[in-house]
Amino acid sequence: MKFSSKVERCRLSPMRKFHPYAVAAEQRGRRIYHLNIGQPDIATPSACFDAVRRFNRNVLAYAPSPGIPELIEAIRGYYARLGMDFAADDILITTGGSEALAIAFQCILDDGDEVLIPEPFYPNYNTMVATCGAHIHPIPTCPEEGYRYADRARIEAEINEHTRAIVVTNPGNPTGVVLTHDEMRMIADVAKEHDLFLISDEAYREFVYGGEALQSMGEFADAAEHVVLIDTVSKRFSACGARVGCLISRNRELMGHALKYCQSRLSVATLDQVAAAALYGVDPSYFAAVREEYKLRRDTVVAALQRIPGVLCECPPGAFYLMAALPVDDADTFQQWLLEEFEDNGDTVMFAPGEPFYATPGKGRNEIRIAYVLKQADLERAMELLAKGIEAYNNR
Amino acid sequence: MKFSSKVERCRLSPMRKFHPYAVAAEQRGRRIYHLNIGQPDIATPSACFDAVRRFNRNVLAYAPSPGIPELIEAIRGYYARLGMDFAADDILITTGGSEALAIAFQCILDDGDEVLIPEPFYPNYNTMVATCGAHIHPIPTCPEEGYRYADRARIEAEINEHTRAIVVTNPGNPTGVVLTHDEMRMIADVAKEHDLFLISDEAYREFVYGGEALQSMGEFADAAEHVVLIDTVSKRFSACGARVGCLISRNRELMGHALKYCQSRLSVATLDQVAAAALYGVDPSYFAAVREEYKLRRDTVVAALQRIPGVLCECPPGAFYLMAALPVDDADTFQQWLLEEFEDNGDTVMFAPGEPFYATPGKGRNEIRIAYVLKQADLERAMELLAKGIEAYNNR
Repeated sequence: MKFSSKVERCRLSPMRKFHPYAVAAEQRGRRIYHLNIGQPDIATPSACFDAVRRFNRNVLAYAPSPGIPELIEAIRGYYARLGMDFAADDILITTGGSEALAIAFQCILDDGDEVLIPEPFYPNYNTMVATCGAHIHPIPTCPEEGYRYADRARIEAEINEHTRAIVVTNPGNPTGVVLTHDEMRMIADVAKEHDLFLISDEAYREFVYGGEALQSMGEFADAAEHVVLIDTVSKRFSACGARVGCLISRNRELMGHALKYCQSRLSVATLDQVAAAALYGVDPSYFAAVREEYKLRRDTVVAALQRIPGVLCECPPGAFYLMAALPVDDADTFQQWLLEEFEDNGDTVMFAPGEPFYATPGKGRNEIRIAYVLKQADLERAMELLAKGIEAYNNR
Repeated sequence: MKFSSKVERCRLSPMRKFHPYAVAAEQRGRRIYHLNIGQPDIATPSACFDAVRRFNRNVLAYAPSPGIPELIEAIRGYYARLGMDFAADDILITTGGSEALAIAFQCILDDGDEVLIPEPFYPNYNTMVATCGAHIHPIPTCPEEGYRYADRARIEAEINEHTRAIVVTNPGNPTGVVLTHDEMRMIADVAKEHDLFLISDEAYREFVYGGEALQSMGEFADAAEHVVLIDTVSKRFSACGARVGCLISRNRELMGHALKYCQSRLSVATLDQVAAAALYGVDPSYFAAVREEYKLRRDTVVAALQRIPGVLCECPPGAFYLMAALPVDDADTFQQWLLEEFEDNGDTVMFAPGEPFYATPGKGRNEIRIAYVLKQADLERAMELLAKGIEAYNNR
């Protein structure tokens, strides 16, 4: 049978491709330290579960296609506290940030179009963009520069007649790069001047460790026609399994098109929207505690990495990921070897090999993404395993 | 700004387009009888809410991309009781039947491809197919024949070199048509002989009123490479707001491609999957009671329609919809008039105008879809309003 040429271009998730090897290693009695998936271990605020338990309608009915008013109002309130004033119909509730991204791309992209994305980038963008028949055009970065990309000349050099949008993940997954306010302003200006959409994936907004104010591309009122915000409760409230996100834009035509997609899939899960609305009422002290915890974890991982000979890793200012270049020939082969051949006291470690985070062939081969989502002691042990693994792998 | 040529071809949902007029009518004090949306008023089995209340993990984490094993096992058990033996990896849990449909189309369709669908059909198929750059090629039917389409010559006449799949909704939305076992066998044979996928949307499987056994295209083992089942808990358990469905196929290559999409959106909502798994444990007497209730409603609506002069409506054997041809010039204009000009004791009625259920321009203009999802007394009043409305509209 023949399949879509678009799906043939897509790949399985690099974060999940070693899953069968991990299962086999566990069956051999290995304990695996998982740094490969961005699933936080932080408790979800109890408001989430309380709201669901209080739900007392007797029919679990469709919600309105744009989302339940209670959640839309909660999100408006959250942005108002950050100084941004969105109307209710600037916000469409989506099934996670993932659906918001998919809808934004589907509204904008035609076959042969390009979106500019700094590489390394979140690999699921590949499937979403390929589904539209479009391509990711990477903005190059390098580990030596801490993966920073916000240079006007560097970005403008990649714009061509096929470019339809710039996508930034800020704070960055997988790099942890956080844009300064001036850099955000510059990117918004580039989008305006070149008449491009600016899709800003701000899932990790709260995860910044330099004491800076929370930021959003939504602050630039003059770029309102261009800016599309992607947001989600997944990381903010450690509620990844709720699958509740939103698409936010003041571009009325875009929102009109996006509503067509929202109607075609009817609605987002009702109970999860009720839970998400309750989460937005969580006391701000929650974020302060979470931020402290992640900062500690980041510092632990970075300090340990910088002690490993030959590892290249700058201290990233945000999110809960980092990229590091390792002194190995191929991170993919190394990961498989760690699962199949290596053990230290019965333990081994998993990360995400770097190559699938790049669009440029061959780039990222000796790099890895680490999600520092484990407790401090586990992270220390995981870093020890990585150090021992590198040494044993190179001496094998 | 420029938008995707694909989204420009999509329209808002015809079931929801009169929403603003309905709101305005309600603000003028009208009571509206809603027959326009397929949202059942039947209580969701309490097992759904009980399961959610019992959830006691402290992190609402991502579920596995293919779905939680507990739900996949529950669905396997349900199909086993119907005589079909599916492996765990023949099943991917999706965000409603809607996502299962979108994924199936995205795996199969390229620009310029066609899918054969009997018209009138579920209008959201339009958006899903257009997103892939493909087109719906209709199999014609007519109200005089009760919208039946399962004729080999009629189907084969529409197959051409662009055809990639046949889509059937069985039992049918919007027509209530139910295929006989022989008709299903014939359609599976056509798919095999012409090397087409057969996407069988079986959301309404339990809603059949002639005492027949529950059926599925999944029964035809010899067509396993061709058959793709779309299923959902939405109507079966009156749990539309759970947004839990599944894609089922024994075609391994298709399932491999579908998994890429499942991974790119990470997972389906965790709590809803737990709830859905519990729903599959509901006692079969639940379905018997629900079926009796809908059969009564159908008979009420059909009898009332057949008493209205000039209305054409056969008694449909399944689902909870029917199409009827009205003695009016244009059902769209008539609906707007019902909301803006008409009232009887302060009441009016809403249905879905028929034209958007067709791909052939001009067809369905005097037809409507009725969802008989209200209690008996309300349905009787709604039919009275329709009869009075038709008379007043034609005498205005």
